[in-house]
Amino acid sequence: MLSKSQIKLITRLKQKKYRIADGFFVAEGIKVINELLESSLELHLLFTTESFKSDIKNETLITENELKKISFLTTPNKALAVFKIPTPKNSKYLGLIVALDSIRDPGNLGTIIRLCDWFGIKELVCSKETVDCYNPKVVQATMGSITRVNINYLDLNTFLAEAEMPIFGAFMDGKNVYKRELPKAGIIILGNEANGISEAIEKQVTERIAIPRFGDLQATESLNVATATAVLLSEFRRG
Amino acid sequence: MLSKSQIKLITRLKQKKYRIADGFFVAEGIKVINELLESSLELHLLFTTESFKSDIKNETLITENELKKISFLTTPNKALAVFKIPTPKNSKYLGLIVALDSIRDPGNLGTIIRLCDWFGIKELVCSKETVDCYNPKVVQATMGSITRVNINYLDLNTFLAEAEMPIFGAFMDGKNVYKRELPKAGIIILGNEANGISEAIEKQVTERIAIPRFGDLQATESLNVATATAVLLSEFRRG
Repeated sequence: MLSKSQIKLITRLKQKKYRIADGFFVAEGIKVINELLESSLELHLLFTTESFKSDIKNETLITENELKKISFLTTPNKALAVFKIPTPKNSKYLGLIVALDSIRDPGNLGTIIRLCDWFGIKELVCSKETVDCYNPKVVQATMGSITRVNINYLDLNTFLAEAEMPIFGAFMDGKNVYKRELPKAGIIILGNEANGISEAIEKQVTERIAIPRFGDLQATESLNVATATAVLLSEFRRG
Repeated sequence: MLSKSQIKLITRLKQKKYRIADGFFVAEGIKVINELLESSLELHLLFTTESFKSDIKNETLITENELKKISFLTTPNKALAVFKIPTPKNSKYLGLIVALDSIRDPGNLGTIIRLCDWFGIKELVCSKETVDCYNPKVVQATMGSITRVNINYLDLNTFLAEAEMPIFGAFMDGKNVYKRELPKAGIIILGNEANGISEAIEKQVTERIAIPRFGDLQATESLNVATATAVLLSEFRRG
């Protein structure tokens, strides 16, 4: 049974300002919720149309219709959970770091977080204009990876100015990434979907690289930012 | 000014069966429409809240409110066009070919089409269960690349059985793709988002490959199919 105050809390969490005020975020679907339950995240509420196997406190069985009322998805997926937003861990900025300059699409951010997890990137740094990683669509797209990558929102300009590592950015006129040696430590910047890396940030880039295009002259001008991230992380890691 | 019959036609085109019956598809937004106008596609109708620069027949100026009525997007983007679905060109199955086994997410298919365009893959082959490439969300995600990749829906099993090329599929137990030589011609199969490559198709794979995971044991079990495509096409092309 859902209470009115629970419905109100969950509906609020669609908006960033309320996630910040309340300190909670929403995750949906058996797979994602199971991944989050296995992490150190603190579960606040769990609503499900079928009991989870594991022995969970705070579990409330609800009907499909009740789930429809609280779900953010067009096709609700059996369960919805509310977790406490964790405090970011103390970051050690060693090895490879990914930095995002105003990524706006939740699906792109979620996919990039999952890529960081796959490629063993522990630290993801986001400009303050980047979409909130606890946006429900981001949480969904990370498929649980959000608990394994440390994500910090900060002033990207200051962060880069203080960094003592090579700073990589992808540009059309950069050096062919397939042909140069890539270090084991450095910062890889990915820019906004429409405008790429902003001018201020571009000034801090020490290594301009490019992913060569193999299509003909008429081919697409750019890669989607998540697929560009996939190609770059693969190149840095493959050795 | 929008007529009732135009509204009806456009609304129908959200559904695959009507796209097939009517032979039209919808594209939205200045950038995508401009890309399609530059191709050999035949424009049927164009509704826009601001006149396009180029001299276009069939252009109808409409209000923001009228656009809202016909747009499939939550945030309509200045223009909506209806194009004729082209007949696929005669395919020459040479070089690298991408084959999709039941890709269901429109965003993933759109991103894969854009990747094919970037990496110079001319032929994309889709199983009949794969989402329709003229689905409005696919058209949107391709950013115009849909006109530069030849897409055929066919019986994938029969196609592979008749192919005289190496057939690559990504599996957890495959050979490290970074460590083996990759040919200039072959078929790369990508599988369904939830279930991967189906059993029947797996039997036709002649080369089992794997994208190594660099995260620790707890890291995500899989990559999103579009990002896996990005890594594989990059590997095949980088030489």
